[in-house]
Amino acid sequence: MPPKVLIIMGSDSDLPVMKKAADALEEFGVEYEMVISSAHRVPDKTAEYAKEAEERGIEVIIAGAGMAAHLPGVIASHTTLPVIGVPIASGPLNGVDALYAIVQMPSGIPVASMAVDGTKNAAIFAVQIIARKERDLALKLKKYKEDMARQVIEKNEQLSRIGVKEYLKQNK
Amino acid sequence: MPPKVLIIMGSDSDLPVMKKAADALEEFGVEYEMVISSAHRVPDKTAEYAKEAEERGIEVIIAGAGMAAHLPGVIASHTTLPVIGVPIASGPLNGVDALYAIVQMPSGIPVASMAVDGTKNAAIFAVQIIARKERDLALKLKKYKEDMARQVIEKNEQLSRIGVKEYLKQNK
Amino acid sequence: MPPKVLIIMGSDSDLPVMKKAADALEEFGVEYEMVISSAHRVPDKTAEYAKEAEERGIEVIIAGAGMAAHLPGVIASHTTLPVIGVPIASGPLNGVDALYAIVQMPSGIPVASMAVDGTKNAAIFAVQIIARKERDLALKLKKYKEDMARQVIEKNEQLSRIGVKEYLKQNK
Amino acid sequence: MPPKVLIIMGSDSDLPVMKKAADALEEFGVEYEMVISSAHRVPDKTAEYAKEAEERGIEVIIAGAGMAAHLPGVIASHTTLPVIGVPIASGPLNGVDALYAIVQMPSGIPVASMAVDGTKNAAIFAVQIIARKERDLALKLKKYKEDMARQVIEKNEQLSRIGVKEYLKQNK
Amino acid sequence: MPPKVLIIMGSDSDLPVMKKAADALEEFGVEYEMVISSAHRVPDKTAEYAKEAEERGIEVIIAGAGMAAHLPGVIASHTTLPVIGVPIASGPLNGVDALYAIVQMPSGIPVASMAVDGTKNAAIFAVQIIARKERDLALKLKKYKEDMARQVIEKNEQLSRIGVKEYLKQNK
Amino acid sequence: MPPKVLIIMGSDSDLPVMKKAADALEEFGVEYEMVISSAHRVPDKTAEYAKEAEERGIEVIIAGAGMAAHLPGVIASHTTLPVIGVPIASGPLNGVDALYAIVQMPSGIPVASMAVDGTKNAAIFAVQIIARKERDLALKLKKYKEDMARQVIEKNEQLSRIGVKEYLKQNK
Amino acid sequence: MPPKVLIIMGSDSDLPVMKKAADALEEFGVEYEMVISSAHRVPDKTAEYAKEAEERGIEVIIAGAGMAAHLPGVIASHTTLPVIGVPIASGPLNGVDALYAIVQMPSGIPVASMAVDGTKNAAIFAVQIIARKERDLALKLKKYKEDMARQVIEKNEQLSRIGVKEYLKQNK
Amino acid sequence: MPPKVLIIMGSDSDLPVMKKAADALEEFGVEYEMVISSAHRVPDKTAEYAKEAEERGIEVIIAGAGMAAHLPGVIASHTTLPVIGVPIASGPLNGVDALYAIVQMPSGIPVASMAVDGTKNAAIFAVQIIARKERDLALKLKKYKEDMARQVIEKNEQLSRIGVKEYLKQNK
Repeated sequence: MPPKVLIIMGSDSDLPVMKKAADALEEFGVEYEMVISSAHRVPDKTAEYAKEAEERGIEVIIAGAGMAAHLPGVIASHTTLPVIGVPIASGPLNGVDALYAIVQMPSGIPVASMAVDGTKNAAIFAVQIIARKERDLALKLKKYKEDMARQVIEKNEQLSRIGVKEYLKQNK
Repeated sequence: MPPKVLIIMGSDSDLPVMKKAADALEEFGVEYEMVISSAHRVPDKTAEYAKEAEERGIEVIIAGAGMAAHLPGVIASHTTLPVIGVPIASGPLNGVDALYAIVQMPSGIPVASMAVDGTKNAAIFAVQIIARKERDLALKLKKYKEDMARQVIEKNEQLSRIGVKEYLKQNK
Repeated sequence: MPPKVLIIMGSDSDLPVMKKAADALEEFGVEYEMVISSAHRVPDKTAEYAKEAEERGIEVIIAGAGMAAHLPGVIASHTTLPVIGVPIASGPLNGVDALYAIVQMPSGIPVASMAVDGTKNAAIFAVQIIARKERDLALKLKKYKEDMARQVIEKNEQLSRIGVKEYLKQNK
Repeated sequence: MPPKVLIIMGSDSDLPVMKKAADALEEFGVEYEMVISSAHRVPDKTAEYAKEAEERGIEVIIAGAGMAAHLPGVIASHTTLPVIGVPIASGPLNGVDALYAIVQMPSGIPVASMAVDGTKNAAIFAVQIIARKERDLALKLKKYKEDMARQVIEKNEQLSRIGVKEYLKQNK
Repeated sequence: MPPKVLIIMGSDSDLPVMKKAADALEEFGVEYEMVISSAHRVPDKTAEYAKEAEERGIEVIIAGAGMAAHLPGVIASHTTLPVIGVPIASGPLNGVDALYAIVQMPSGIPVASMAVDGTKNAAIFAVQIIARKERDLALKLKKYKEDMARQVIEKNEQLSRIGVKEYLKQNK
Repeated sequence: MPPKVLIIMGSDSDLPVMKKAADALEEFGVEYEMVISSAHRVPDKTAEYAKEAEERGIEVIIAGAGMAAHLPGVIASHTTLPVIGVPIASGPLNGVDALYAIVQMPSGIPVASMAVDGTKNAAIFAVQIIARKERDLALKLKKYKEDMARQVIEKNEQLSRIGVKEYLKQNK
Repeated sequence: MPPKVLIIMGSDSDLPVMKKAADALEEFGVEYEMVISSAHRVPDKTAEYAKEAEERGIEVIIAGAGMAAHLPGVIASHTTLPVIGVPIASGPLNGVDALYAIVQMPSGIPVASMAVDGTKNAAIFAVQIIARKERDLALKLKKYKEDMARQVIEKNEQLSRIGVKEYLKQNK
Repeated sequence: MPPKVLIIMGSDSDLPVMKKAADALEEFGVEYEMVISSAHRVPDKTAEYAKEAEERGIEVIIAGAGMAAHLPGVIASHTTLPVIGVPIASGPLNGVDALYAIVQMPSGIPVASMAVDGTKNAAIFAVQIIARKERDLALKLKKYKEDMARQVIEKNEQLSRIGVKEYLKQNK
């Protein structure tokens, strides 16, 4: 199956954080492609990835970057596919720089920003987009939401049953 | 035609800013519904809007809020539709509070944040999502992008032709 | 005795910080109930906790949350009991996001914010509220304040007696 | 009737903002007293107000201050009554300074912070505290909440009925 | 004479601020070219400007942008000419977003950031670079510095002579 | 009488703010000298002012500057007199830049920072320093403090007497 | 000899940082007294320390505090002695809260703020104040400044002599 | 060969970070000189370095400093050579203080700011300036850019070939 989500990042130092997006997509059975392509170091290659994405069957692009995080915006400038940006907490400013550089896009070229280091949510949001035309994904999302809810409820029941001291002992 | 985008805001003081999303959707010929429903003042009504959105045919929800901007996250907690959040620059902190309250969502419940007051981009991003299953919207987005580009190029040509002083005189 | 304070948090990762509120309430002999119930993952359950709190005899609710910390505001939207919010320092923004998301509540739905990670003060403030109708708690608060004062004075006397070098040696 | 809420501020330049707390208390029929007493300019007088508050029948203290906003903390150091702090947006830092100076109280001496300029919420929170022992106030709070909800719903119905352009025309 | 400095900006709304760079370059008799070319709206055109700059005789590029200010970094990714970035104070975050998006460039692709709205300094810095190979510019810079110094000294003498009240009257 | 306080600023645009320091010193009858001397535009002249200050009889230096506010630190590098720095709220960052540039001095070269635009306090602090060796100034400071206290008390009495509405009417 | 400098802090957790002020004062041979007295926990005792300081022969007060750092301002409200405030980097906001709470004092009650954790500079600034009336301290300050300069020059010479690699090896 | 780049820093604690600039210059074969000379501790020596730089053949100055980072601006005040400033992340504010103190220079005296801790980019930018008159450096810069691009492409190919899990294993 051709990939539906392109996960792109500027540096392999971002891989450990971006991998969480891949892991989440796998949970949902959504094919993805993972690419290292810096907006600043290989701008033409990066533009190419963005331009060709749609005709290669990509539905959504997830772009992660730290510091002066231009990658999501640069990608968005070359495609009309939805682009999800993930600010990565690298360097002394701890991701506030990346957040501002990703979220504050000018009118006409949207980038959807996730939380700093919010790679997992980027994947879920990508699934939510694709689920608009794939019913089974929509069902999986509902199930995922129910599972999350059940887990919280189970934890709460455990806490209520054994009390906070015992809970902390069993769950550290 | 039933609406595909639900534009929701917490207060009618947000209407002038949120209206830009409506205007942009109209440009693309995408049906929308505009609703005032505060996460804090009518939480059950708001939950209802979120829960019923999908079966009412809504594809994407745009939620705008200022200050401790909980509306987008609250909406996202009740639906698996894509939720786009717009932080609104109200109050003394000028939208930084709303940005943090919208973008920093915990794992599992994504909200796609736009720029502070980025209502127009919210609409375009909503169109990008729906365009994944409506070819004509995809074409309109491409045309929109080309128009934007042409406008920049024309402005640049005008600047080049008449010089900066004359340009500023003619365009103020 | 039925609990008078509901301590609620969105995730069990917040338990170690929130436990300090429980410990402080125990010091004052105030019954409490501790609950894990995420505003985003189990919104209906959370709303239920908030709505039923008053008739179950709860007097004050302490809600702690990190990042886009919506829990205190969501609770406050469903009750007229006093809600105390504790921003928790989790994630790369270190609690500033949670502080803004908790304290900047819109007009009509107050949440009383404590310091980032200020769980102990949340408990004391809850006691101060309940003490308005329970004389013995008011007396305990006065005693608590006097004890704090005495401790500072004793430390100061020790410092004055043995000097800073010796003090640091004995108190590390 | 002796006042139940003491509204205290450091300077008469804060009066226009603090007056909103007084107005809200009047709506609820709660007696209050309004005092100008700077933590820095009349520290002993301010300490006296704080120390005597409880025996004069005060139930809650609302303290508003801007910049290095010490007033709420100073008040809290002299009483075990609940103290609600309101950071006021004065000076070039626009209230962020006051927010930090109010909310970041050390362990043992809580101050409940409202939003920057959140004077109205301070009053409502004070009512919520007093309502713990006065049933009629609890009922008034419920009614207030219902009225807020009804207003939002009416605005939403009007918007739905007349559309956004007409709504903005009629409500500017 | 072919231009030596390329002044590029993303939108004609930046023209009034960027014009100050042009004015300063004219003072020094340095030829420049002024171009509107958004990194996001016409990315290929922008890349072209950057790529062709060197062979067209450009020595330095000044790029100004607001909000998620990618233009300077995008330009720098396509050239090894020195790129000077000017963060522009537009939108609710008042230029802090643009500053972070410009200055926090990753290793290997430098952008020299000026102050927020520091367009005049961008021009002077461009002259300082070109002056490394044009002696007469180096002399003009020295003279410019001396003139600045003289003006400060004259103002100081005037202040010393007529006093502060009279000075403020004569110079408002 | 030779001046005891040197008030120095980098630009005559700072004069209206710095004048408040002069006015306050006049209230206390302390001789001062007011000088425009930029750390960046006339560095040698500025160094000279700093170096010669002590032997010219200056006791304290007040230095005000905005943006990358180096003046106070530069002055402090050339003298062992106490240097008081006043961050001035100019430019888009509104004085936070100046505050950081003034207050964060490295070990060994202190600068005493006042609030952003806190020129009046700079003067009072200068008087407090000189008062350490001039008894009459110490008495004037006590009187000044008493006057401030009395004014607050009088305002409070007026408020108590005529109520908030009337007070606001009479004092706008 | 009676102490000339009062070093006061709110908690013994601040002792390790505040000790650096004591050490520096000892270097200059200036007598000091070190006191733990919280503005919030023992407000009356703290007020007493401030009020009695002058007649006990204290010339300068150094007050250090973290978070909502009220101690320096509270001290300053009770004395006309110069008060030097040191923001301490404790808690999740890392001292920015303490800096704002110390430096942003209102008109009439100055506090001289040092850098976050700038305890050593607080001591030097205290010496600079006292040196205004004690010639030998003025000389010691000059010598201290010369020693600092000599150390920098020696380090520079060492670096120049042995190169950066060797320097880093010898000085780690 | 006489040095073309002067690398100057205020303290030897900055050496490990500043060394990266030296290393990068060596890669390009550009002669440099490394100097410790604090703007605050040896201001006259520092001024001398700045004033004599040009006639000693220096083409560009790289100045790094932390906290209230005045060194780059002080250097720029004494020369018309291009000055590149590097904010260093030292102390509790983690380099934001240094960034503001370096980048926010007033009109007339530019300093080109790099990212916080962006020493390597400072060196590359210096080479870009000198390359304006040395063809071989211009070629080296192009090659450097191509090498960076090739490395990204190779990493991307490796990732594509072996997958993310294996990649992370081989490259940790």
